[in-house]
Amino acid sequence: MKTYLDCIPCFLNQALRAARISGANDKLQKKVLDKLIQMMTSISLDKDPPEIGRIVYKTTSEVTGVKDPFKDIKKKCNKKALAVYPKLKEKVAYSKDKLLTALELAALGNAIDLGKYALSDSEEETSNILKISDILNIQNQSIFDYEKFKKALDSTDQILYLADNAGETVFDRILIEELDKEVIFAVRDKPIINDALLEDAKFCGIDKIARVISSGSDAPGTILNLCSKDFLDIFKKADLIISKGQGNFESLENENAPIFFLFKVKCPVVANYIGSKVGEIVLKSNLK
Amino acid sequence: MKTYLDCIPCFLNQALRAARISGANDKLQKKVLDKLIQMMTSISLDKDPPEIGRIVYKTTSEVTGVKDPFKDIKKKCNKKALAVYPKLKEKVAYSKDKLLTALELAALGNAIDLGKYALSDSEEETSNILKISDILNIQNQSIFDYEKFKKALDSTDQILYLADNAGETVFDRILIEELDKEVIFAVRDKPIINDALLEDAKFCGIDKIARVISSGSDAPGTILNLCSKDFLDIFKKADLIISKGQGNFESLENENAPIFFLFKVKCPVVANYIGSKVGEIVLKSNLK
Repeated sequence: MKTYLDCIPCFLNQALRAARISGANDKLQKKVLDKLIQMMTSISLDKDPPEIGRIVYKTTSEVTGVKDPFKDIKKKCNKKALAVYPKLKEKVAYSKDKLLTALELAALGNAIDLGKYALSDSEEETSNILKISDILNIQNQSIFDYEKFKKALDSTDQILYLADNAGETVFDRILIEELDKEVIFAVRDKPIINDALLEDAKFCGIDKIARVISSGSDAPGTILNLCSKDFLDIFKKADLIISKGQGNFESLENENAPIFFLFKVKCPVVANYIGSKVGEIVLKSNLK
Repeated sequence: MKTYLDCIPCFLNQALRAARISGANDKLQKKVLDKLIQMMTSISLDKDPPEIGRIVYKTTSEVTGVKDPFKDIKKKCNKKALAVYPKLKEKVAYSKDKLLTALELAALGNAIDLGKYALSDSEEETSNILKISDILNIQNQSIFDYEKFKKALDSTDQILYLADNAGETVFDRILIEELDKEVIFAVRDKPIINDALLEDAKFCGIDKIARVISSGSDAPGTILNLCSKDFLDIFKKADLIISKGQGNFESLENENAPIFFLFKVKCPVVANYIGSKVGEIVLKSNLK
């Protein structure tokens, strides 16, 4: 997906938030904005948003000198999500359609996104998920390719699962446990926003139920030409890929691969692009 | 109030919206953003937001060639608000505290703001105001200097009323009719966003209950050094000023004048600055 003009002010907002979380004072925050503003006129909008997002966050880190500003927040999100793990399991256990409930929970867990939300909002989202007694009615979601997904799942033994955020990984664990398949769980290689790294996957217990690998890249999405050869080998051979989050969708939606994109729609640009609404959860197949 | 770094991405979003309403294609929208981005690094944040907002909208108009992009929208807002006028009057008539209800309605009418919202949102806001059966409980608002206002009102015969948006003027009319004082109603001199002009005030019937004047300025606020001498004479002599909207607040809050600011809080920057919450209505006195 290309970058839209609306993404430019959004990137500036994201950089400002990251600079503040990094402890930058007003002067340094201004320096971050000025540097990005100068870059923005020359950046090609043909790049996909995670490609530009990667540059935005890298530039912010260079100016502030803080490489992993979301480190503590990621730990907090992991802990908070792990604390609700038993309740999530309970929700699935008492559900009429366990796979569907697990899918929905994994999608709702995608709300833990510090690129889009403040920490307090993400915490609120985590609590809200637990309040939803019957989870969602997928009939009310614009795009939820559940039947297609079940069919694809039936005919595969191994799944490549592309992670998105820390904390969200607990919700991914819920889904992986319901899939009952061999899963390879791919995380980012280096810190970027609050995206999950190897340590987050391990902390949330994913390594006990899946093989955890790195994508080899530090983009807030899966930009294939930035990924490692090892990851690309697995990606190309995969029979079924579950891709979490908008960033992975934005960078992979044009790929000719058996991907199901599972995410919460967080901005009007993506909502408009796919024909859904902000706040909805989406399960979108790119299978022909 | 000075301009905050958060205002920069917000201005870019506003310009993008204005360019689209002007019918600008992608290329022209990009040209608007590029031009503003280049300006943003050199603009002093010591200016107040309406001062920068004025430049942002002027620049957008220069690039698109459309001088009054909100013209049709303003007409639509006027008509829509006039259609609910009888219902608003009824609300006041059946209220225990007519002045308070009129103040609250005037503040709620400030939601008709195309700088902040899309037209559909503003239309929804207008409908929502009618749905609020008992209006608001001012006890739940962080700042609502009602007692101070009643006292100030008791000891004055003439009020200078600084208008904000078209359509909102109908809600202002409701308040002016309850004030039962001589009112001078000041509007912007030239088109800026969807701010009320002389024609809007007249269309909404304000000229029948108040003396309508121009501020002499085309800023989306009241920047005194851009106002006409006639307006300044009235402003300086005023015993009581009712100032509608965030723009007027941002540009006048430091003035040593008997002003009551009445507005809906529309952004976290202002909410944080005054100690309220986004979405609240505010009646704030700057009387010592």
